[in-house]
Amino acid sequence: MTVQQFTDYVKKMQHYQEALGVIYWDMRTGAPKKGVAQRSEVVGTLSASLFDMQTSEQLGGLLTALEAQNTELDYVTRRLVEEVRKNYDQNKKIPAEEYKEYVILQAKAETVWEEAKATNDFAQFLPYLEQIIEWQKKFIQYWGVKNGSTYNTLLDLYEPDMTTEVLDQVFGELRETIVALVQKIAASPNKPDTTMLFKQFPKEAQRALSLEMLTQLGYDFDAGRLDESVHPFMIGINHGDARITTKYDEHDFRSAIFGTIHECGHAMYEQNIDAKLAGTLLATGTSTGIHESQSLFYENLVGRNEKFWAHNYERLQKHSPAQFGDVPLNDFLRAINMVEPSLIRIEADELTYPLHIMIRYEIERDLFNGDLQAKDLPEVWNAKYEEYLGIRPDNDAKGVLQDVHWAGGMFGYFPSYALGMIYAAQWKHAMDQDLPNFDDLLAKGELLPIREWLTEKVHQYGALKKPFELLQDATGEGLNAKYLANYLQEKYTKLYQL
Amino acid sequence: MTVQQFTDYVKKMQHYQEALGVIYWDMRTGAPKKGVAQRSEVVGTLSASLFDMQTSEQLGGLLTALEAQNTELDYVTRRLVEEVRKNYDQNKKIPAEEYKEYVILQAKAETVWEEAKATNDFAQFLPYLEQIIEWQKKFIQYWGVKNGSTYNTLLDLYEPDMTTEVLDQVFGELRETIVALVQKIAASPNKPDTTMLFKQFPKEAQRALSLEMLTQLGYDFDAGRLDESVHPFMIGINHGDARITTKYDEHDFRSAIFGTIHECGHAMYEQNIDAKLAGTLLATGTSTGIHESQSLFYENLVGRNEKFWAHNYERLQKHSPAQFGDVPLNDFLRAINMVEPSLIRIEADELTYPLHIMIRYEIERDLFNGDLQAKDLPEVWNAKYEEYLGIRPDNDAKGVLQDVHWAGGMFGYFPSYALGMIYAAQWKHAMDQDLPNFDDLLAKGELLPIREWLTEKVHQYGALKKPFELLQDATGEGLNAKYLANYLQEKYTKLYQL
Repeated sequence: MTVQQFTDYVKKMQHYQEALGVIYWDMRTGAPKKGVAQRSEVVGTLSASLFDMQTSEQLGGLLTALEAQNTELDYVTRRLVEEVRKNYDQNKKIPAEEYKEYVILQAKAETVWEEAKATNDFAQFLPYLEQIIEWQKKFIQYWGVKNGSTYNTLLDLYEPDMTTEVLDQVFGELRETIVALVQKIAASPNKPDTTMLFKQFPKEAQRALSLEMLTQLGYDFDAGRLDESVHPFMIGINHGDARITTKYDEHDFRSAIFGTIHECGHAMYEQNIDAKLAGTLLATGTSTGIHESQSLFYENLVGRNEKFWAHNYERLQKHSPAQFGDVPLNDFLRAINMVEPSLIRIEADELTYPLHIMIRYEIERDLFNGDLQAKDLPEVWNAKYEEYLGIRPDNDAKGVLQDVHWAGGMFGYFPSYALGMIYAAQWKHAMDQDLPNFDDLLAKGELLPIREWLTEKVHQYGALKKPFELLQDATGEGLNAKYLANYLQEKYTKLYQL
Repeated sequence: MTVQQFTDYVKKMQHYQEALGVIYWDMRTGAPKKGVAQRSEVVGTLSASLFDMQTSEQLGGLLTALEAQNTELDYVTRRLVEEVRKNYDQNKKIPAEEYKEYVILQAKAETVWEEAKATNDFAQFLPYLEQIIEWQKKFIQYWGVKNGSTYNTLLDLYEPDMTTEVLDQVFGELRETIVALVQKIAASPNKPDTTMLFKQFPKEAQRALSLEMLTQLGYDFDAGRLDESVHPFMIGINHGDARITTKYDEHDFRSAIFGTIHECGHAMYEQNIDAKLAGTLLATGTSTGIHESQSLFYENLVGRNEKFWAHNYERLQKHSPAQFGDVPLNDFLRAINMVEPSLIRIEADELTYPLHIMIRYEIERDLFNGDLQAKDLPEVWNAKYEEYLGIRPDNDAKGVLQDVHWAGGMFGYFPSYALGMIYAAQWKHAMDQDLPNFDDLLAKGELLPIREWLTEKVHQYGALKKPFELLQDATGEGLNAKYLANYLQEKYTKLYQL
C-alpha cells in the first residue's frame, strides 16, 4: 500500500517535470518571442507546485515508512527510495526562507556576471561570487560533510561518491600525459591545414547530413526528434521522448555535426533505459559524468575516428562538394583533430579540453577545502593557464569570467566533463574485448553493435546502479585514467607523427 | 486585497491551462509517438490539478466576496468574476461522482462511435448516445434552464444568450434563400471545371505559399508559428502565442491554403486582444460563433473573393506552374467556389454548408425541447438531407454517424459554425461603411486596414463584451441573416450566371 502510494506520488512529480520539459524544449526551439515572458511565469508556477510536492510532509512520511521496511522492498523500489530521499534532504534541509534568499541572489549573480563578462570587470562580480560561495558552504553544513571533506559534498551532487582523493589521482596522471603531448605537438612541424573547415556549408545540407548521421548511429526517431537551438542540448522529456537540438553555422559545420553526434550519445542513453524504470526518478542517467561519457564516446571515439570518416567522407563531400571535393580524407581528419591550446573551454579541442577542467577543479577544491579566496581567482586562474596550457588570458572575460557555472552556484559540476572522457575510454577498452572489430564496424557504417554494447552495460540501468558500481560491473575495475591517457597518446602521436 | 487574491488565483489557473496548451500543441505537431502514451498521463495529472483549482472552496469564497462588492469593481474585474462564476457553477453544480461516471461514459462513447462509424452500425452506438443525452438532460437540471428552454442551456455554453427563438428565425430565413439558390445552380448548365484543383502541388511550395498568405493577411509571426498536423487548428497558448497548423495534401491544395487562411482568422483574433486582458479568462474569443466569424470572414469573404485572387493568382501560378499556368483566373475562381450538395459536412462548399448545420440544429433542438428519440435519428437525418439538399445518405456512416460531436456530448455546438457565417456577413456590411474600397484593398493586397477594422470592432474586446453586445456595438443591430443571404445571392447568381 505504502509502496503504491509512494510510486504514484513520484509519478505525479515526474508528470510535472515532464510538463516543464516540454515547455523548456519549446522555449528553446521556436516559441514565438512575444509569448516567452508569460511562459516564464508558467514555469514559475509549475516549479513551485513541484517544489511543494518534493518537500511535503506527506513525502517525508512515505519515505520514513518505506525506509523502516527497507529489506522487504524490491531493488528498484529501494533505489528509488534512496534517490528520492537524497533529493528530499537536499531540498528540505535548507530552511525555506534561506533558500528563497539564495535563489534571489543567484538570479542576481547571473545577471551581474553577464554584465561583468561583457565589461571585463571581475571586481563587479566578486561580491556576488563571495556570497554564492558563503551560501554553498552553509548549505554543505546543512547537508552534511560527505566522504571526509566539504568539497566532496558538492561533487556528490553531480557524481555520487566522487572524492577529491580520486580526482587528484586520475587528473594528476592525465595531466602529465596531456601536457607532454601538447608540448610535443607545439614543437611539431606537422601543422594541419584547417581552412576547409570554415567554407560555406548550406544549412539545409547540414541538417540532411545530421539526420543521416543520427540514423546511422542508431537514434530512434520514434522516441525523439531533431530541432535547432542557440545552444545544442538533449532533453529526456519522458522514456519515449529524448529530443536533441543542434546549431547550424554555415561557416563552421563542426558545431552542427559534432553537436548532433554528441547529443545523440546523450539521447541514446535515455532512449535505451529499461522500460520498467519509466515514470520513476531512475529513468535517467546515473550521473552527469556517466551521461557525458555517452555523448563524448560518440563525439570523440566514434565521430572523430578515422574509420568512421573512411565510411562517411564521401557522404560529406556529396553534401558540400565545393568545400570538401578536392580535400583528401587524411587532410580532413587532421583538420577536425587539430590541437591548439586556447583560452576558452567550450572551444577547446579533445586533447587540451581536460586541462581546462583540471584548472577549474583545482580552484573549486581549494576554495572549499583550502584557503583560496575568491578575490585571488583571476591571478590563480591565469597562472594555471600559463602553467598547463602555456598561454595567459589578457583579460578576465577570456579567463575566470568565461563560464556561467559559478554565478549559478554550480560548484562540483565541472569535473563531470573530464570524467566523461575518462569513463568513455574505459568503456572503449572493455568494449574492445567484446567487439575486437570496432574499427571495422565503423568502416562499414555498422554502428548498431556499439550502441547495443553500451545499452547492455550502461544504458539499460538508468540510475539503478551508481557510477562506481556501473563502472566496476562493466569494466571490472574502478576509475582509471590510463585508458584515456593511452588513447590520447596513441591517437595524437600518429596524427602529428610525433 | 480580495481582488488581488482573485486575479492571482485566476492567473495560476491560466498557467495550468497554458502548460496544457503547449502539451496539446506538441502532441499534434510532432511529439515522437513512443512518448505520447505517457504524455497523456501528464495531461491527466495537470487537468485534475486544474479542475481542483476550478472547483475549490477557496475560489467559491473569493467569488462570493467579490459578488457582494460588485458595484465597486471595475468593469474588467466584474466581467472576469462573471465568467469565472459561470465556469465554477458549470463544474461545481454536477456532483463530482456523477461527473466522473459521465467522463468515463463519454470516453467509451467516443470509442464506440469510432467503431460504429467504421462498421456503419448505428445500433451499436445508440445505447451510448441515449445515455449521453440522458446525462446532458440531467446536467441541464443541475445548471438550470436558461432563457426559457432546456436546449437554450446548451446553446448558452458556446454562444452566450443564444436561443432557439433567434435561431429558428435566422436559420429559417437563410434556408429559404439557400435552398432556392442550390436548386437554381443544380439546374444551371454553367458547371465549373474543377480538374485543376486535384493536380499535384508539392508540399514545400504549399508551405511557402501559406507563409506568404499569412504575412499578407497580417498574421504576427512574433506571436505565433505555422506547423503541420492531421487536422488544422489554431491554439491561443497565451496572449503572445497564437499558433496555427495546416494540412498539406499534394493532390488537393485547398486544405492547406484555405485551412491556413481560416486558422489565421482565428489567430488574429487572439493576437489582437487588448493586452490588459492577458492572463485573465477574458483574453480569448467571446464565443465559438464569434471566433468562427473571424476565421470564416477570412476564409470566405477574403480568401474566396475574386479580387483577392486578382492580386494573388500570379503568385499561385508561380508556386505550381504546371497546375495553374494555363488556367484563366476566372476558371480558377469558379472551381474554388463550386457548389454541389454533398453528404459530408466538413467537405461542403460555402453555400450548402449552412444546410448541414441547420439539420443538426433542428435535430438537437427536438431531442431536448421536443419528443424526438435518439433511435429515430437515422430516419430523421436522412429525410432532412433529402428535403434540404436533395440527396439521401445510403448508409449511416455517411449520415448521422459522420461527426464526433454527439459522442463527446457536444450538443449546442453545431449552430456556432453557421452563426460564424452570419456574423461574418454582418461585419462585412458594417465594414463597408468604413472601408467602401474593400475590393480595391484586396486587389492591391493591402489587407491591413481590414484586420485593423476587425481589431477595433471585435478583437480587442476578447470576452469582455458578450456576443450580442459586441454585435450591437459594431453593427448597430442584432443577429440578422439578411446580410449573409444577400451576399450568397449576389455571389452565386454572378458565378453561375443564374
